[in-house]
Amino acid sequence: MQLLEDRIQREGTVKTADVLKVDAFLNHQCDVALFDAMGEAWAEHFAGKRIDKILTIEASGIGIACCAARHFGNVPVVFAKKAQSINLDGDQYSTTVYSFTKQREFPVIVSKKYLNAGEHVLLIDDFLANGKALHGLIDLCEAAGAVIEGIGIAVEKGFQKGGDELRAEGYDVDSLAIVESMDPQTGRIEFRH
Amino acid sequence: MQLLEDRIQREGTVKTADVLKVDAFLNHQCDVALFDAMGEAWAEHFAGKRIDKILTIEASGIGIACCAARHFGNVPVVFAKKAQSINLDGDQYSTTVYSFTKQREFPVIVSKKYLNAGEHVLLIDDFLANGKALHGLIDLCEAAGAVIEGIGIAVEKGFQKGGDELRAEGYDVDSLAIVESMDPQTGRIEFRH
Repeated sequence: MQLLEDRIQREGTVKTADVLKVDAFLNHQCDVALFDAMGEAWAEHFAGKRIDKILTIEASGIGIACCAARHFGNVPVVFAKKAQSINLDGDQYSTTVYSFTKQREFPVIVSKKYLNAGEHVLLIDDFLANGKALHGLIDLCEAAGAVIEGIGIAVEKGFQKGGDELRAEGYDVDSLAIVESMDPQTGRIEFRH
Repeated sequence: MQLLEDRIQREGTVKTADVLKVDAFLNHQCDVALFDAMGEAWAEHFAGKRIDKILTIEASGIGIACCAARHFGNVPVVFAKKAQSINLDGDQYSTTVYSFTKQREFPVIVSKKYLNAGEHVLLIDDFLANGKALHGLIDLCEAAGAVIEGIGIAVEKGFQKGGDELRAEGYDVDSLAIVESMDPQTGRIEFRH
Protein backbone atom coordinates (compact mmCIF):
# COMPACT_ATOMS: atom_id res chain seq x y z
CA MET A 1 0.00 0.00 0.00
CA GLN A 2 1.79 3.06 -1.31
CA LEU A 3 0.23 5.47 1.21
CA LEU A 4 1.53 3.44 4.17
CA GLU A 5 4.95 2.80 2.63
CA ASP A 6 5.39 6.51 1.92
CA ARG A 7 4.43 7.34 5.48
CA ILE A 8 6.88 4.81 6.90
CA GLN A 9 9.66 6.24 4.68
CA ARG A 10 8.82 9.77 5.79
CA GLU A 11 8.08 9.36 9.49
CA GLY A 12 9.32 5.90 10.50
CA THR A 13 12.64 5.55 12.32
CA VAL A 14 14.92 2.52 12.20
CA LYS A 15 16.13 2.32 15.80
CA THR A 16 18.03 -0.97 15.57
CA ALA A 17 18.28 -3.83 13.06
CA ASP A 18 15.00 -5.15 14.53
CA VAL A 19 13.11 -2.08 15.75
CA LEU A 20 11.14 0.22 13.46
CA LYS A 21 9.40 3.09 15.26
CA VAL A 22 6.15 4.22 13.68
CA ASP A 23 4.63 5.82 16.74
CA ALA A 24 4.06 9.12 14.92
CA PHE A 25 1.06 7.68 13.05
CA LEU A 26 0.41 4.04 13.96
CA ASN A 27 0.82 3.04 17.58
CA HIS A 28 1.06 6.01 19.92
CA GLN A 29 -0.22 8.89 17.83
CA CYS A 30 -2.86 7.51 15.44
CA ASP A 31 -3.71 8.90 12.00
CA VAL A 32 -7.34 7.84 11.65
CA ALA A 33 -7.55 8.91 7.98
CA LEU A 34 -4.68 6.48 7.31
CA PHE A 35 -6.45 3.80 9.40
CA ASP A 36 -9.55 4.35 7.30
CA ALA A 37 -7.60 3.85 4.09
CA MET A 38 -6.04 0.70 5.58
CA GLY A 39 -9.50 -0.66 6.35
CA GLU A 40 -10.56 0.05 2.79
CA ALA A 41 -7.53 -1.86 1.46
CA TRP A 42 -8.29 -4.90 3.64
CA ALA A 43 -11.96 -4.81 2.61
CA GLU A 44 -10.83 -4.94 -1.01
CA HIS A 45 -8.40 -7.81 -0.35
CA PHE A 46 -10.89 -9.88 1.67
CA ALA A 47 -13.90 -9.02 -0.54
CA GLY A 48 -16.27 -11.97 -0.93
CA LYS A 49 -15.26 -13.57 2.36
CA ARG A 50 -17.76 -13.77 5.19
CA ILE A 51 -16.46 -11.68 8.10
CA ASP A 52 -18.63 -11.76 11.23
CA LYS A 53 -16.17 -10.20 13.61
CA ILE A 54 -12.74 -8.60 13.84
CA LEU A 55 -10.40 -9.88 16.56
CA THR A 56 -7.36 -7.87 17.62
CA ILE A 57 -5.15 -7.52 20.69
CA GLU A 58 -4.67 -4.54 22.97
CA ALA A 59 -3.48 -1.91 22.75
CA SER A 60 -2.17 -0.85 19.33
CA GLY A 61 -4.52 -3.05 17.30
CA ILE A 62 -7.70 -1.53 18.69
CA GLY A 63 -7.83 1.79 16.85
CA ILE A 64 -6.88 0.19 13.53
CA ALA A 65 -9.48 -2.55 13.95
CA CYS A 66 -12.23 -0.09 14.93
CA CYS A 67 -11.54 2.07 11.86
CA ALA A 68 -11.37 -1.02 9.62
CA ALA A 69 -14.69 -2.42 10.91
CA ARG A 70 -16.61 0.33 9.08
CA HIS A 71 -15.44 -1.24 5.82
CA PHE A 72 -16.79 -4.64 6.87
CA GLY A 73 -20.36 -3.53 7.55
CA ASN A 74 -19.67 -2.36 11.11
CA VAL A 75 -19.01 -5.89 12.41
CA PRO A 76 -18.12 -6.06 16.12
CA VAL A 77 -14.47 -5.62 17.10
CA VAL A 78 -13.23 -7.75 20.00
CA PHE A 79 -9.87 -7.03 21.55
CA ALA A 80 -8.04 -9.75 23.42
CA LYS A 81 -6.67 -8.51 26.71
CA LYS A 82 -3.18 -8.85 28.05
CA ALA A 83 -4.04 -10.03 31.53
CA GLN A 84 -2.08 -9.76 34.75
CA SER A 85 -3.09 -13.27 35.62
CA ILE A 86 -5.39 -15.84 34.16
CA ASN A 87 -8.82 -15.95 35.71
CA LEU A 88 -9.64 -19.61 36.06
CA ASP A 89 -13.39 -19.33 36.44
CA GLY A 90 -13.87 -20.79 32.97
CA ASP A 91 -15.63 -17.87 31.35
CA GLN A 92 -12.70 -16.94 29.15
CA TYR A 93 -10.37 -18.47 26.59
CA SER A 94 -6.74 -17.89 27.46
CA THR A 95 -3.34 -18.50 26.01
CA THR A 96 0.21 -17.31 26.59
CA VAL A 97 2.26 -15.07 24.33
CA TYR A 98 5.98 -14.43 24.57
CA SER A 99 6.91 -10.80 23.97
CA PHE A 100 10.43 -10.17 22.67
CA THR A 101 9.97 -6.46 23.35
CA LYS A 102 9.13 -7.07 26.99
CA GLN A 103 11.23 -10.25 27.31
CA ARG A 104 8.54 -12.15 29.14
CA GLU A 105 5.45 -14.26 28.67
CA PHE A 106 2.05 -12.81 29.35
CA PRO A 107 -1.44 -14.31 29.36
CA VAL A 108 -3.86 -13.20 26.65
CA ILE A 109 -7.57 -13.69 27.25
CA VAL A 110 -10.91 -13.22 25.57
CA SER A 111 -14.34 -13.69 27.10
CA LYS A 112 -16.13 -16.81 25.86
CA LYS A 113 -19.18 -14.60 25.31
CA TYR A 114 -17.47 -12.67 22.53
CA LEU A 115 -15.83 -15.39 20.46
CA ASN A 116 -18.12 -18.15 19.30
CA ALA A 117 -18.02 -21.44 17.43
CA GLY A 118 -18.70 -20.99 13.73
CA GLU A 119 -18.02 -17.25 13.69
CA HIS A 120 -15.92 -16.11 10.74
CA VAL A 121 -13.16 -13.91 12.07
CA LEU A 122 -10.67 -11.47 10.59
CA LEU A 123 -7.55 -10.95 12.71
CA ILE A 124 -6.01 -7.47 12.63
CA ASP A 125 -2.83 -6.15 14.20
CA ASP A 126 -0.40 -3.30 13.71
CA PHE A 127 2.81 -5.37 13.44
CA LEU A 128 3.81 -8.86 12.38
CA ALA A 129 7.36 -9.91 13.17
CA ASN A 130 7.87 -13.37 14.67
CA GLY A 131 4.13 -14.00 14.76
CA LYS A 132 3.85 -14.78 18.49
CA ALA A 133 0.92 -12.43 19.15
CA LEU A 134 -0.98 -13.66 16.08
CA HIS A 135 -0.45 -17.28 17.06
CA GLY A 136 -1.97 -16.33 20.41
CA LEU A 137 -5.06 -14.96 18.64
CA ILE A 138 -5.19 -18.11 16.49
CA ASP A 139 -5.07 -20.26 19.68
CA LEU A 140 -8.05 -18.31 21.06
CA CYS A 141 -10.03 -18.79 17.82
CA GLU A 142 -9.24 -22.50 17.78
CA ALA A 143 -10.34 -22.86 21.40
CA ALA A 144 -13.63 -21.14 20.49
CA GLY A 145 -14.15 -23.05 17.25
CA ALA A 146 -14.16 -19.80 15.27
CA VAL A 147 -13.13 -19.80 11.60
CA ILE A 148 -10.19 -17.55 10.66
CA GLU A 149 -10.92 -15.98 7.29
CA GLY A 150 -7.76 -13.93 7.10
CA ILE A 151 -5.17 -11.76 8.79
CA GLY A 152 -4.80 -8.03 8.11
CA ILE A 153 -1.49 -6.50 9.16
CA ALA A 154 -0.27 -2.92 8.84
CA VAL A 155 3.50 -3.47 8.90
CA GLU A 156 5.16 -6.84 8.46
CA LYS A 157 8.87 -7.27 9.08
CA GLY A 158 9.52 -9.52 6.09
CA PHE A 159 13.00 -10.37 7.35
CA GLN A 160 11.51 -12.10 10.39
CA LYS A 161 9.75 -15.40 9.91
CA GLY A 162 6.23 -14.81 11.25
CA GLY A 163 4.48 -13.79 8.04
CA ASP A 164 5.98 -16.48 5.83
CA GLU A 165 5.22 -19.15 8.46
CA LEU A 166 1.58 -18.07 8.65
CA ARG A 167 1.29 -18.14 4.85
CA ALA A 168 2.88 -21.62 4.81
CA GLU A 169 0.26 -22.69 7.36
CA GLY A 170 -2.38 -21.63 4.83
CA TYR A 171 -3.52 -18.30 6.27
CA ASP A 172 -4.45 -15.46 3.95
CA VAL A 173 -2.17 -12.74 5.33
CA ASP A 174 -2.59 -9.26 3.88
CA SER A 175 0.24 -7.04 5.10
CA LEU A 176 -0.10 -3.51 3.76
CA ALA A 177 3.63 -2.82 3.99
CA ILE A 178 6.29 -5.56 4.13
CA VAL A 179 9.70 -4.30 5.18
CA GLU A 180 12.24 -6.44 3.33
CA SER A 181 15.25 -4.82 4.93
CA MET A 182 16.13 -1.83 7.04
CA ASP A 183 19.40 -0.29 8.12
CA PRO A 184 19.81 1.56 11.41
CA GLN A 185 23.07 3.14 10.16
CA THR A 186 21.64 4.81 7.07
CA GLY A 187 17.93 4.73 8.02
CA ARG A 188 17.22 3.09 4.65
CA ILE A 189 14.03 1.00 4.48
CA GLU A 190 13.23 -1.32 1.55
CA PHE A 191 9.85 -2.88 0.93
CA ARG A 192 8.89 -6.23 -0.64
CA HIS A 193 6.59 -5.94 -3.65
CA MET B 1 -27.71 10.00 24.91
CA GLN B 2 -30.70 7.76 24.53
CA LEU B 3 -28.97 5.22 22.27
CA LEU B 4 -26.25 4.58 24.85
CA GLU B 5 -28.64 4.54 27.84
CA ASP B 6 -30.86 2.01 26.06
CA ARG B 7 -27.88 -0.16 25.31
CA ILE B 8 -26.67 -0.04 28.92
CA GLN B 9 -30.17 -0.99 30.11
CA ARG B 10 -30.34 -3.87 27.66
CA GLU B 11 -26.81 -5.30 27.79
CA GLY B 12 -25.11 -3.79 30.83
CA THR B 13 -24.78 -5.84 34.02
CA VAL B 14 -24.61 -4.44 37.54
CA LYS B 15 -22.03 -6.75 39.13
CA THR B 16 -21.68 -4.95 42.47
CA ALA B 17 -22.72 -1.58 43.90
CA ASP B 18 -19.68 -0.10 42.11
CA VAL B 19 -19.12 -2.29 39.05
CA LEU B 20 -21.13 -1.93 35.84
CA LYS B 21 -20.07 -4.34 33.10
CA VAL B 22 -20.54 -3.02 29.57
CA ASP B 23 -18.03 -5.28 27.87
CA ALA B 24 -20.63 -6.48 25.34
CA PHE B 25 -20.40 -3.21 23.39
CA LEU B 26 -17.95 -0.76 24.98
CA ASN B 27 -14.71 -2.16 26.35
CA HIS B 28 -14.06 -5.72 25.25
CA GLN B 29 -16.42 -6.21 22.33
CA CYS B 30 -16.78 -2.84 20.57
CA ASP B 31 -19.83 -1.64 18.64
CA VAL B 32 -18.26 0.77 16.17
CA ALA B 33 -21.61 2.08 14.92
CA LEU B 34 -22.35 3.11 18.51
CA PHE B 35 -18.86 4.63 18.81
CA ASP B 36 -19.57 6.60 15.64
CA ALA B 37 -22.81 7.95 17.10
CA MET B 38 -20.97 8.84 20.31
CA GLY B 39 -18.39 10.78 18.29
CA GLU B 40 -21.19 12.64 16.55
CA ALA B 41 -22.74 13.57 19.92
CA TRP B 42 -19.44 14.92 21.25
CA ALA B 43 -18.85 16.88 18.02
CA GLU B 44 -22.25 18.51 18.53
CA HIS B 45 -21.54 19.29 22.21
CA PHE B 46 -18.07 20.71 21.55
CA ALA B 47 -19.02 22.47 18.30
CA GLY B 48 -17.21 25.80 17.88
CA LYS B 49 -14.26 24.77 20.05
CA ARG B 50 -10.86 24.38 18.50
CA ILE B 51 -9.80 20.73 18.83
CA ASP B 52 -6.31 19.94 17.49
CA LYS B 53 -5.95 16.51 19.02
CA ILE B 54 -7.77 13.84 21.01
CA LEU B 55 -5.95 12.36 24.00
CA THR B 56 -7.09 9.09 25.56
CA ILE B 57 -5.58 6.28 27.63
CA GLU B 58 -5.06 2.66 26.71
CA ALA B 59 -6.76 0.36 26.22
CA SER B 60 -10.54 0.93 26.26
CA GLY B 61 -10.42 4.58 25.25
CA ILE B 62 -8.59 3.97 21.97
CA GLY B 63 -11.39 2.58 19.80
CA ILE B 64 -13.85 5.20 20.99
CA ALA B 65 -11.37 8.03 20.40
CA CYS B 66 -10.45 6.77 16.91
CA CYS B 67 -14.12 6.58 15.89
CA ALA B 68 -14.79 10.01 17.40
CA ALA B 69 -11.85 11.65 15.61
CA ARG B 70 -13.70 11.39 12.27
CA HIS B 71 -16.22 13.88 13.65
CA PHE B 72 -13.47 16.34 14.54
CA GLY B 73 -11.93 16.57 11.07
CA ASN B 74 -9.72 13.48 11.50
CA VAL B 75 -7.51 15.12 14.15
CA PRO B 76 -4.74 12.85 15.49
CA VAL B 77 -5.56 10.55 18.40
CA VAL B 78 -2.83 10.05 20.97
CA PHE B 79 -3.19 7.33 23.57
CA ALA B 80 -1.28 7.59 26.84
CA LYS B 81 0.39 4.32 27.74
CA LYS B 82 0.23 2.46 31.00
CA ALA B 83 3.91 1.75 31.43
CA GLN B 84 5.67 -0.97 33.38
CA SER B 85 8.18 1.57 34.57
CA ILE B 86 8.93 5.17 33.85
CA ASN B 87 11.62 5.73 31.27
CA LEU B 88 13.74 8.54 32.65
CA ASP B 89 15.41 9.62 29.44
CA GLY B 90 13.33 12.79 29.40
CA ASP B 91 11.53 12.24 26.12
CA GLN B 92 8.16 11.61 27.71
CA TYR B 93 5.73 13.21 30.12
CA SER B 94 4.75 10.87 32.91
CA THR B 95 2.43 10.75 35.86
CA THR B 96 1.03 8.15 38.20
CA VAL B 97 -2.55 6.92 38.37
CA TYR B 98 -4.08 4.84 41.12
CA SER B 99 -6.39 2.13 39.82
CA PHE B 100 -9.13 0.98 42.19
CA THR B 101 -9.84 -1.95 39.87
CA LYS B 102 -6.25 -3.16 40.01
CA GLN B 103 -5.60 -1.83 43.53
CA ARG B 104 -2.23 -0.36 42.62
CA GLU B 105 -0.56 2.69 41.15
CA PHE B 106 0.79 2.59 37.64
CA PRO B 107 2.80 5.08 35.58
CA VAL B 108 1.08 6.71 32.61
CA ILE B 109 3.25 8.20 29.89
CA VAL B 110 3.01 10.10 26.65
CA SER B 111 5.85 10.96 24.30
CA LYS B 112 6.78 14.67 24.34
CA LYS B 113 6.67 14.56 20.54
CA TYR B 114 2.92 13.97 20.51
CA LEU B 115 1.63 16.45 23.08
CA ASN B 116 2.69 20.03 22.54
CA ALA B 117 2.42 23.44 24.16
CA GLY B 118 -0.54 25.39 22.84
CA GLU B 119 -2.35 22.40 21.34
CA HIS B 120 -6.07 22.33 22.06
CA VAL B 121 -6.96 18.89 23.33
CA LEU B 122 -10.16 16.92 23.84
CA LEU B 123 -9.85 14.14 26.42
CA ILE B 124 -11.91 11.01 25.76
CA ASP B 125 -12.41 7.90 27.88
CA ASP B 126 -14.93 5.09 28.27
CA PHE B 127 -15.61 5.50 32.01
CA LEU B 128 -15.50 8.26 34.59
CA ALA B 129 -15.85 7.20 38.22
CA ASN B 130 -13.44 8.71 40.73
CA GLY B 131 -11.61 10.60 38.00
CA LYS B 132 -8.12 9.28 38.72
CA ALA B 133 -7.34 8.32 35.10
CA LEU B 134 -8.62 11.67 33.79
CA HIS B 135 -6.59 13.60 36.34
CA GLY B 136 -3.60 11.66 35.02
CA LEU B 137 -4.36 12.86 31.48
CA ILE B 138 -4.84 16.41 32.80
CA ASP B 139 -1.40 16.20 34.51
CA LEU B 140 0.16 15.19 31.17
CA CYS B 141 -1.53 18.10 29.36
CA GLU B 142 -0.41 20.55 32.04
CA ALA B 143 3.16 19.27 31.82
CA ALA B 144 3.06 19.79 28.04
CA GLY B 145 1.35 23.19 28.20
CA ALA B 146 -1.57 21.88 26.16
CA VAL B 147 -5.01 23.47 26.51
CA ILE B 148 -7.86 21.16 27.57
CA GLU B 149 -10.98 22.15 25.63
CA GLY B 150 -13.22 19.47 27.10
CA ILE B 151 -13.72 15.93 28.29
CA GLY B 152 -15.91 13.41 26.47
CA ILE B 153 -16.96 10.38 28.50
CA ALA B 154 -19.15 7.45 27.50
CA VAL B 155 -20.38 6.31 30.92
CA GLU B 156 -20.09 8.39 34.09
CA LYS B 157 -20.88 6.89 37.45
CA GLY B 158 -22.71 9.91 38.82
CA PHE B 159 -22.74 8.46 42.33
CA GLN B 160 -18.94 8.68 42.47
CA LYS B 161 -17.32 12.07 42.76
CA GLY B 162 -15.03 12.29 39.68
CA GLY B 163 -17.40 13.99 37.26
CA ASP B 164 -18.75 16.59 39.66
CA GLU B 165 -15.23 17.42 40.86
CA LEU B 166 -14.03 17.97 37.28
CA ARG B 167 -17.04 20.22 36.56
CA ALA B 168 -16.31 22.17 39.77
CA GLU B 169 -12.72 22.61 38.55
CA GLY B 170 -14.19 24.26 35.43
CA TYR B 171 -13.86 21.47 32.87
CA ASP B 172 -16.54 21.02 30.23
CA VAL B 173 -17.38 17.35 30.83
CA ASP B 174 -19.80 15.75 28.37
CA SER B 175 -20.80 12.31 29.67
CA LEU B 176 -23.17 10.58 27.26
CA ALA B 177 -24.74 8.47 30.01
CA ILE B 178 -24.62 9.35 33.71
CA VAL B 179 -25.61 6.49 35.99
CA GLU B 180 -27.31 8.07 39.00
CA SER B 181 -27.83 4.81 40.83
CA MET B 182 -27.63 1.09 40.22
CA ASP B 183 -28.64 -1.92 42.21
CA PRO B 184 -26.82 -5.26 42.00
CA GLN B 185 -29.80 -7.03 43.63
CA THR B 186 -32.43 -6.00 41.11
CA GLY B 187 -30.13 -5.00 38.23
CA ARG B 188 -31.96 -1.68 38.07
CA ILE B 189 -30.02 1.24 36.57
CA GLU B 190 -31.20 4.87 36.77
CA PHE B 191 -29.74 7.71 34.74
CA ARG B 192 -29.32 11.40 35.57
CA HIS B 193 -31.01 13.75 33.10
